[in-house]
Amino acid sequence: MIPRYSPPDIAEIWTEKWKYDTWFEIELSALRAMEHHKMIPKGTTKSVEKAINVIDIEAIKNLEKELRHDVLAFVTYLERQAGPVGRWIHYGMTSSDIVDTALALQIDNSMNLVLARTALMTVVLKEKIKKHASTRIMGRTHGVHAEPTTLGYVFAGHLEEIERSVSRLYSAADFVAVGKLSGAVGTHAHIPEEVEYHHLKSLGLKPELFATQVVSRDRHANLITSIALLATSLERLMVNIRHYHRTEVGEVLEAFGESQRGSSAMPHKQNPIGAENLCGIARLLRSYVHPAMEDMILWHERDISHSSVERVIIPDAICLIGYMLDKSFEIIRDLKIDPERMKQNIENHNGQYLTGGVLLHLIWQGMPREKAYLAIKSASHAETAYHFISVLLENKSVSKITNRTKLKSVMAQKQNVAVNKLKEHYSDTFRPQWVHPLGSK
Amino acid sequence: MIPRYSPPDIAEIWTEKWKYDTWFEIELSALRAMEHHKMIPKGTTKSVEKAINVIDIEAIKNLEKELRHDVLAFVTYLERQAGPVGRWIHYGMTSSDIVDTALALQIDNSMNLVLARTALMTVVLKEKIKKHASTRIMGRTHGVHAEPTTLGYVFAGHLEEIERSVSRLYSAADFVAVGKLSGAVGTHAHIPEEVEYHHLKSLGLKPELFATQVVSRDRHANLITSIALLATSLERLMVNIRHYHRTEVGEVLEAFGESQRGSSAMPHKQNPIGAENLCGIARLLRSYVHPAMEDMILWHERDISHSSVERVIIPDAICLIGYMLDKSFEIIRDLKIDPERMKQNIENHNGQYLTGGVLLHLIWQGMPREKAYLAIKSASHAETAYHFISVLLENKSVSKITNRTKLKSVMAQKQNVAVNKLKEHYSDTFRPQWVHPLGSK
Amino acid sequence: MIPRYSPPDIAEIWTEKWKYDTWFEIELSALRAMEHHKMIPKGTTKSVEKAINVIDIEAIKNLEKELRHDVLAFVTYLERQAGPVGRWIHYGMTSSDIVDTALALQIDNSMNLVLARTALMTVVLKEKIKKHASTRIMGRTHGVHAEPTTLGYVFAGHLEEIERSVSRLYSAADFVAVGKLSGAVGTHAHIPEEVEYHHLKSLGLKPELFATQVVSRDRHANLITSIALLATSLERLMVNIRHYHRTEVGEVLEAFGESQRGSSAMPHKQNPIGAENLCGIARLLRSYVHPAMEDMILWHERDISHSSVERVIIPDAICLIGYMLDKSFEIIRDLKIDPERMKQNIENHNGQYLTGGVLLHLIWQGMPREKAYLAIKSASHAETAYHFISVLLENKSVSKITNRTKLKSVMAQKQNVAVNKLKEHYSDTFRPQWVHPLGSK
Amino acid sequence: MIPRYSPPDIAEIWTEKWKYDTWFEIELSALRAMEHHKMIPKGTTKSVEKAINVIDIEAIKNLEKELRHDVLAFVTYLERQAGPVGRWIHYGMTSSDIVDTALALQIDNSMNLVLARTALMTVVLKEKIKKHASTRIMGRTHGVHAEPTTLGYVFAGHLEEIERSVSRLYSAADFVAVGKLSGAVGTHAHIPEEVEYHHLKSLGLKPELFATQVVSRDRHANLITSIALLATSLERLMVNIRHYHRTEVGEVLEAFGESQRGSSAMPHKQNPIGAENLCGIARLLRSYVHPAMEDMILWHERDISHSSVERVIIPDAICLIGYMLDKSFEIIRDLKIDPERMKQNIENHNGQYLTGGVLLHLIWQGMPREKAYLAIKSASHAETAYHFISVLLENKSVSKITNRTKLKSVMAQKQNVAVNKLKEHYSDTFRPQWVHPLGSK
Repeated sequence: MIPRYSPPDIAEIWTEKWKYDTWFEIELSALRAMEHHKMIPKGTTKSVEKAINVIDIEAIKNLEKELRHDVLAFVTYLERQAGPVGRWIHYGMTSSDIVDTALALQIDNSMNLVLARTALMTVVLKEKIKKHASTRIMGRTHGVHAEPTTLGYVFAGHLEEIERSVSRLYSAADFVAVGKLSGAVGTHAHIPEEVEYHHLKSLGLKPELFATQVVSRDRHANLITSIALLATSLERLMVNIRHYHRTEVGEVLEAFGESQRGSSAMPHKQNPIGAENLCGIARLLRSYVHPAMEDMILWHERDISHSSVERVIIPDAICLIGYMLDKSFEIIRDLKIDPERMKQNIENHNGQYLTGGVLLHLIWQGMPREKAYLAIKSASHAETAYHFISVLLENKSVSKITNRTKLKSVMAQKQNVAVNKLKEHYSDTFRPQWVHPLGSK
Repeated sequence: MIPRYSPPDIAEIWTEKWKYDTWFEIELSALRAMEHHKMIPKGTTKSVEKAINVIDIEAIKNLEKELRHDVLAFVTYLERQAGPVGRWIHYGMTSSDIVDTALALQIDNSMNLVLARTALMTVVLKEKIKKHASTRIMGRTHGVHAEPTTLGYVFAGHLEEIERSVSRLYSAADFVAVGKLSGAVGTHAHIPEEVEYHHLKSLGLKPELFATQVVSRDRHANLITSIALLATSLERLMVNIRHYHRTEVGEVLEAFGESQRGSSAMPHKQNPIGAENLCGIARLLRSYVHPAMEDMILWHERDISHSSVERVIIPDAICLIGYMLDKSFEIIRDLKIDPERMKQNIENHNGQYLTGGVLLHLIWQGMPREKAYLAIKSASHAETAYHFISVLLENKSVSKITNRTKLKSVMAQKQNVAVNKLKEHYSDTFRPQWVHPLGSK
Repeated sequence: MIPRYSPPDIAEIWTEKWKYDTWFEIELSALRAMEHHKMIPKGTTKSVEKAINVIDIEAIKNLEKELRHDVLAFVTYLERQAGPVGRWIHYGMTSSDIVDTALALQIDNSMNLVLARTALMTVVLKEKIKKHASTRIMGRTHGVHAEPTTLGYVFAGHLEEIERSVSRLYSAADFVAVGKLSGAVGTHAHIPEEVEYHHLKSLGLKPELFATQVVSRDRHANLITSIALLATSLERLMVNIRHYHRTEVGEVLEAFGESQRGSSAMPHKQNPIGAENLCGIARLLRSYVHPAMEDMILWHERDISHSSVERVIIPDAICLIGYMLDKSFEIIRDLKIDPERMKQNIENHNGQYLTGGVLLHLIWQGMPREKAYLAIKSASHAETAYHFISVLLENKSVSKITNRTKLKSVMAQKQNVAVNKLKEHYSDTFRPQWVHPLGSK
Repeated sequence: MIPRYSPPDIAEIWTEKWKYDTWFEIELSALRAMEHHKMIPKGTTKSVEKAINVIDIEAIKNLEKELRHDVLAFVTYLERQAGPVGRWIHYGMTSSDIVDTALALQIDNSMNLVLARTALMTVVLKEKIKKHASTRIMGRTHGVHAEPTTLGYVFAGHLEEIERSVSRLYSAADFVAVGKLSGAVGTHAHIPEEVEYHHLKSLGLKPELFATQVVSRDRHANLITSIALLATSLERLMVNIRHYHRTEVGEVLEAFGESQRGSSAMPHKQNPIGAENLCGIARLLRSYVHPAMEDMILWHERDISHSSVERVIIPDAICLIGYMLDKSFEIIRDLKIDPERMKQNIENHNGQYLTGGVLLHLIWQGMPREKAYLAIKSASHAETAYHFISVLLENKSVSKITNRTKLKSVMAQKQNVAVNKLKEHYSDTFRPQWVHPLGSK
C-alpha cells in the first residue's frame, strides 16, 4: 500500500526485512524441533545460529534471479553461509512450510495492531454516547424527517454494529493463526506430526490438520471478508457524518484545521474530506473479497496463483483497515457537534414529526386507523405555514374526539427516546467517576 | 431463483403465502404482547384472530397498487377485515417491525434446512475417507506430480475446510436471528422495551439493541459472505473432481447415468457436468457478497435501497447453497473411484515422485544440500525411458555414498502418508461397527 | 428475475416457449442451409416443417429427465415427431450450435427493447434541460455549497454521461450478436464455413470466427459490464435526486401519488422510494460483472460451468436494466421542481458562494493570491449573521483596493453559468417549435 | 503496485515527480491560453517560466501538511517562487482543473505503453498459429476428449478474443483522454470555453462537455473494466497452458530455465509458475472493477471519495496489465510444444474421438439418429482394450449398413479441421516471406 495510507507500525511487519527475519526464525525453530526429536544431529541448531550472523537481502535477491524461486534462494544462501552443517537447514521441509508459517506470523502480529485500534473506536464512541445521550436530533428515513431520536442513540447503533464486526474480526484472526511443517503434500512423509506440533507451538501457532502443500486459503479469505465488513460498518458512520455536515443540515461536522484550506478556488470551503476519504478506503477494502475467495480454489495439492494476489491484498488490507481505524477515531473524537442547529432543524417543518404519535392518539380515542391516517396525511401535506396540529384540528372528525391541549400533552409524552436503555447498557461509561481513557478533550 | 436451482422445501419459505402468513403471525404476536403489558384493551388479540379467517393475497396486492406501500396494504386489509377492533393492529409499529422480523424468521427457517444438509456432506465425505484412507493417489502441485498422498487424505483436507465454513455459517445464522419492535426510528417512542422482548422471545428471536428503523444490515451481509465462503469451499472440491475426471487422468469420476447422454454430437462423451454446474453456482453465490455489503450503508435511520437487493439475493443465496449441498452430496456419494488408474499414474513417470526422499537421503549421507539437489534435478530431468534412480546412480558422487538397495529401502520408508492421523482424527468413523447413516451404497 | 422487476415485453423473450421456438427456428434454418449446399437431401426441410406442428414443452422436459441433456431431449423429440426424415435434424451439429445461437437471438431481441428505452431517457432529460437551462441551483461539492450552477446544466452532465454509457451498450450489443454452426470443437469438421455463413445470415447474426465448442464468453461479459456501467450512471442521477429531496434541501422531489402512502407509522412521509429502489437495482446489476468475467475462463474447448450462471444473470441483467430505464424515465418525467426553494438555499448562507469570484477580483486588483485567499477565508468563516462581503470589507487591505460597488458588479458578472453552451449543444431541443415527443406534461 | 509487478517504463509515469512536472506543465499551458485570450497580462507565462526553475517536492509536501490540500500546497509553492506575477497562476481555476487533466495525461501516456505491448502479443500468437496451423491436438470439452483440432486453431481462438479485448481497450483509452478547465462547478464561471479548448488542445486532450467539478468517472470505470476484460482473456490462455502442462497431458509446456529450480523439497519439479502467477494477476485486475464503478456515484458536483481509490487502482491496474502482457508474451514465445505427445494422447483412447463422424455416417446410411446414437454410445463405453470401431462393428444393425473400409475412409475425411480458414484469415502471416518482427527464435 502507498505510504499515505499505511500506518508505519503495521507497514513495518510487511517489509522484506521482517519477512526474511521471520523465515530465519522459522528455519531455526524447525531445526530445534527436529533436533529435540532426534531427526538431525545434536548441536545443529546452535552451529547454524553461530554461523549465520546476517541476512543479506541483496545477496538473496540476486540468487533468486538465477534460481527463480524465492525460498530456494533463501535456503541456498543460508547453506552457503553455514557451511557443512547447513545441509540440515530446511531438512524434510517444503517452501510452504516456511512461507505459510511466516505469513501467519505476519498476519498475527499486524492484526494485533489492528485489533488494538478497535478498542479506541469503542472508547471514543462511548464518550460521545455519554455526552449526547439526550441530545435530540431528527431521525431521518429516506433522507426525510421521521421522528426525533438522540445523537447518543444514533452513535449507539453504530457502536453496536462496529462491535459485532470487530468480534467477527477477532474470530477471523484466530482462524488464520495456523502454520504447517508437514512437507510437500502435507502428509508428514518426512517430518512426523510431533515435530510439527512442537515447532508451531513455540511460534504461537496451531497446525493445519490435513494440509495440502499449503495452509487452506479459506482462512485468509475469511479474514479479508471480515475486514471488509468492518470497513463497511465504518463507512456507514462516515456517510452519516457527511450527511450531517451538509450545508443545509449542519448538525455534526468534521473538524477543520486552523491552517487547513478547503479549495483552491473557493476560500470559504470546509469539507468533510476525511469522511469522504474513508468511504473510498472502504471501497478498496471490499474489493479484496473477491480475489481472496478466488484464491481458495487451488488445484489439487496447490498451485501458486494465489501468491501474486496475496503479496498485494493481505498487507494492503491490513494496512488500510489500520489506517481507517486511525482516521475514524480522529474524526469522531474531533467532531463539531451543534445541538442548537439540531433543535432548529426539528422545529423548522411545522411539527410533521408528530404525525406518528398523533395517529396512535386518534386510534386510542376510537377512530379507525385508516380514517385517522388519512386525516393526518392530508393535514401534514397541506402547503401552509401553519403548524400541522392547527391544520389537523380544522378537521371536524378530529376535533370531535380530541383538542389542542390533549394533543400537546400526548405529544410531549410520546416523543420519548429510550435514553435509559443507553444508560443501562453503557452503565460503566455513565458512572460519574468514569475517566476517559484518552484524556480530556 | 429459477426452479431448476431451488430445492422445494427451501423455496416454499420464500413464497408470498409464507411471507403473508408470517406477517400475520407477527401482528398477532405483537398484539398479544401489547395486551399482556396493558397497552391495548384486553381481548383484542382474540377478537382479531376470530375476525380474520383468510389472508387474501390478491386483495392485498390490489391495495398495494393503490397505496404503493406493501405493509400498509396488508395492515389496511387486516383492519378492513377485522372491523373496529382492527384499529389496534399495528399499533405503535412501523413497517420494518413486521418486515425485518419476518425476514429473520424466513432466514432462520430456511437456514435450518441448509444447515441440516451440511451434515450429509460430512457423513458422505467421512465414508470416503474411511474407505480410501490408504488408497494411494499422486499428490499434484501446479498440476505436476509431486509426492503421493492418499485419496482419504485428500478428502480429509476438503472435509476440514468445509467444516470450518459450516461453523462460520452457524455463527452467521445466529447473528441474523434478530427482529425488532421498537418503532419508526428504533427509539421505543411508542412501544416499551419489555413488549418488544416478550414479543420477539415468543417468535424465537433476539431484539436489535439500538435499532434504526431497521435491523442492521451487517447481519445479513455476514450471512451472505459466509454462504459464499462455503460455496467456494465446495467449489474447490468440485474443481478437483473435474481434474481427476480428465481423460488423461481418469482417477475419480463423476458418475454417469445409464440413460444419460453426454453430447448431441459425440455419443461417447461422459462429462463431469454436475461438478461444472456447481462451479457456476459458486460464482453466483460469490456475486451476492458485494451488493449485500453495499446494502449495509443505509442513510441515517434507513433508506429503502437495500430492499430490492434483498428481495432477490437473500432467497436466491439460500436456495442456491441448499441446491449446491444437495448436488455435492450426490456427486461425492456416487463417485466412480479407480485405484488401479491411480497406481498406474503414479508409476508412469520414471519415479520422479521419489526425488524429495532421495534428497534427504543424500543429505543424510553427508552430501551438501545444494549439490544433492543439483544431482537429483539433473537425473530427473533427463529425457530417457529409464527409471530416475538408475539415472541418478550413474552420477559418481552419488554412487560413492549410496547404492540401489539403500535407496530402495529409503524410498519405501520415506513415501509414507500419515494414515494413522486420519484414523485417530476420525476414530468414530473407523470403528468396525460404524454404521453409515445413509445406508449402504 | 422476479416479476416485480421484469418488464413483460422483455421477460417474454426469456420464457421456455420463446427459447424452444427459437431452437426450432434454428434447426430449420440449418436444414435449409445444408439443403441449399447439398449436404442433405432436397426437400428435407419442408418435410420436417410439415411433420412437426407443435413443440410440446412438457414432453421435452420429460425426455430431459431421462437423458439429462436438454438439447438431446429436444432433438430426440423432434426426430420422433418427424419420422425417418427426422434423422437429418441436427446433422453435423453440436448442442452449442443451437444453444449459443439461440442465446444470441434472445439477447439481440431483448436488447433492442432496452436500447429503445434509452431514447426515452434522452428525451425526458432534454426536456428538463430546456426548461431549466437557466434555473439557478446551488452547486455543491462535498455536500457543501460551492458556486451556483443551473438545474439544466446539472441534468446536461447526467445526460452526457448516460449517452456515453448507452453508446457503449450499443457497441456491446453488436459484439454479442454472434452465433455458430461449426460443430463440436468449432473446426467445421462436418459442416463447411459457407453453410454456417448462409445459416447465420438468415438469422441476422455473424459467425464466431475460430470458435471453440461455444461462442467466446468475452462477448457476454462485455455486455454485462456495459449494462452495469449504464446502471451506475443512472444510479448517480438517482442519488442526486435523493439528495435534492432531503427535507432540509427540498429542491427537486420525486413525485408522490395522490393515493400513495409513505409509512405505516408516520402519515406525513413522502419518500423518494423510486430513486432508492433504483439504487438497489444498480447494486444487483453491478453484481453480475464478476461472475460474467469468471465465465470467460472456460477450460480448453469449453466446460459447462458458465451455463448455470448465464441462465440467471443474462435474462436478469437485461430485465433489470429495462426496468431501471422505465422507472428512471418516470421519475425524471414527474419530478417536482421548486426553483423558489433553490433560490432561498442559495441566499441562506451569507453569500459564501461568492468567495471564488471575489478571490479573482482581489488578484486582479493586484493582491497576491495567498494574501487574498486568507483574507477571504477569514471573512467567510466568521460566525456572524452579516453578509460575507460586509465582513470582508472590514479588512483594510481589502477596502484599500476595492469597495462594495465594485464587488457587487464583479459578482453579478462573474457568477455566470454557460447557459449558451447548453443552448448550442442541444440546439434542436431549444428551437421554439420543438415538439416534445412524449406529449405535453 | 509493488515493484515486482510494475514495468519500470509505466511505473515512472506514476511517480510524484512525473505528476508535479505535469501539474506545472498544465498551469503553464493554462496561463498561455489565458494570455492568448487576454484574460491576464501579456508576458505573464514567460515571467512565470523564468522565475520557477525547480519543483521542490519536499517543500510542497511540507506545505501540504500545513494546508491539508495537495493542489493548494503546489500553487502556493509556485506563487511564492514566482513573486508578484505568481498571483496569476491558477487564476480562475479549481484544483480538479489540474488534477483531472494531469490524471488524463498520466493515463494517456501509460496506456500508450500498454497498447504497444498488445501488438507483441498479436505477433507472437500469429507466429504460433502459422507454425502449428496443422499440428493436430485433441479438442477437449469438459476436460474430456471431444474431436481433434489443431494447435494453430486453438491459438487463433485465443488471438481473436484477445484482439476484441484490445479493441475495446483502445476505445476505452479514447473515452478517458479528457481534461477540463471549466472551474469550480464546471460552469465556465470564470474561464470561457474557448480558453479551455485552446488549453486542452495543446495538451492533446478533449474537454469534458458539461463537467461537474470533475471529469465524469464513467470514463475511468470503463477503462478499468476494459483492462479487466483483457486480463481475463489472457487468463483463459494461461489456464489452458496450465492444463496442457499437466504431467498426464504434457503437450504444451511453459519453458523452464536452465538454472531455475521448481521446488525446495522436490528437485524434479518443473511447474508452470508463470501462467499461474498471471492467473493471480487477473484476479487482482478484476477486483478493481467494483471500486471503479462505485467511484462513479459522486454526490452532486463531486465529493472526494473517489480520490483514495484512484490513487491506488488506476496506476496499479495499468502497471499490472503491462506486466501481464510482458509475461504473457514471454510465456507464449518460449512455449515447449510437443506434437508427438499430442498424437499419442489422441490415439490413446480407442478412437473414441471418432464417434461424432461415425454418427453422421450411420445417419447417412439411413439409420435413425437415435438408434445410431445408442449403438455408438454403447460401443464407445465398452470397457475393453479394442478399438471402438471394432466394437461397433460387432453390432449387427451397424454391420448391415457399413463396414470397416467405409468407416475408415469416412473417418479420414470427416475429422478435418478448417486449416484453410486459418491460412485465409491470417494470410499475411502465412506468406513464405513473412518476417517475424521479433527476430527468429
